[in-house]
Amino acid sequence: MTSSGSLRVLGVDPGLTRCGVGVVDVARNRSASLVHVGVVRTEPSMPIEQRLAAIAAGLRAVFAEHRPDVVAVERVFAQHNRSTVMGTAQASGIALLLAGEFGLPAATHTPSEVKAAVTGYGSADKLQVQTMVARVLRLDALPQPADAADALALALCHAWRGGASTPAGGKAEATLTPAQRAWADAARLARR
Amino acid sequence: MTSSGSLRVLGVDPGLTRCGVGVVDVARNRSASLVHVGVVRTEPSMPIEQRLAAIAAGLRAVFAEHRPDVVAVERVFAQHNRSTVMGTAQASGIALLLAGEFGLPAATHTPSEVKAAVTGYGSADKLQVQTMVARVLRLDALPQPADAADALALALCHAWRGGASTPAGGKAEATLTPAQRAWADAARLARR
Repeated sequence: MTSSGSLRVLGVDPGLTRCGVGVVDVARNRSASLVHVGVVRTEPSMPIEQRLAAIAAGLRAVFAEHRPDVVAVERVFAQHNRSTVMGTAQASGIALLLAGEFGLPAATHTPSEVKAAVTGYGSADKLQVQTMVARVLRLDALPQPADAADALALALCHAWRGGASTPAGGKAEATLTPAQRAWADAARLARR
Repeated sequence: MTSSGSLRVLGVDPGLTRCGVGVVDVARNRSASLVHVGVVRTEPSMPIEQRLAAIAAGLRAVFAEHRPDVVAVERVFAQHNRSTVMGTAQASGIALLLAGEFGLPAATHTPSEVKAAVTGYGSADKLQVQTMVARVLRLDALPQPADAADALALALCHAWRGGASTPAGGKAEATLTPAQRAWADAARLARR
């Protein structure tokens, strides 16, 4: 947590072609401000090993510049049997790897958890998510593209859920890292 | 390719709990020798971000020490709907990432391609693979555990197929890297 008591969360919407990344500061009263938003893009014509290295370089620069307290990554499901699912899983592994290498706790959230946290509705569409993210962060325009908005929504979701949701390894709150537990405790106090 | 004309291949059988890694030198006449074999292990109780960082550290040490020419990784399929498939995909992404970061070409091979290349039989069982790997590399004992044998088999498969199989990005031989093409040409000459 920063000296101001806010939590800096880095959210990643993993993908090979477009990997959304967003950083927000979230105060104990749940108000949030934008720190960074962007998309790391790679060309489908590049070899996979070069695409993953480019994604790692792009994400690493954001980690190094913005020094988040915690990392939130969208959870990828095997049953999404799209041709891109393996690449998405590999990109999510890169984001989680970097969290580990920077010594940060990481958590994963499902798309419906993110939508529910941000819009109150687990089946919200992309425009609803973008609209709520823009409103919460007091942005003049909708965050574009959707991958960028999703990364910000993931970060907000993680902070608002008090770090009490499933860590990336699927463990319960009893096994939260000290930083996650501190925030969970802080978030509970803030809600009283 | 080394000055001796042999190709040094690093094979990775990706996994979170046991990630097999093997390095072999393969001469133009297809004879092969063992350079390194090992398994990077992580505890299921560790957070995923720490497991992936440990796998990256373990693999990076092998890349740095043995300086392969090319990296071969077992291809992971989404339709293998086991609970571990996402972790396996993430570990494979780490191996491919490191190839990219070391400036090396990478390729993926399916388990049946590997079994066919090493034993002549695409449905060979683990013992048959271990036995053939031990025979080819003139080992006194079967490589243990099976993940280590599979990593060696992957490396042999890659060299024997002449680097002409599918690169990790799924592209055809027309888009092989210069190093892959040089080896493919060399392998074809060797087979005449």
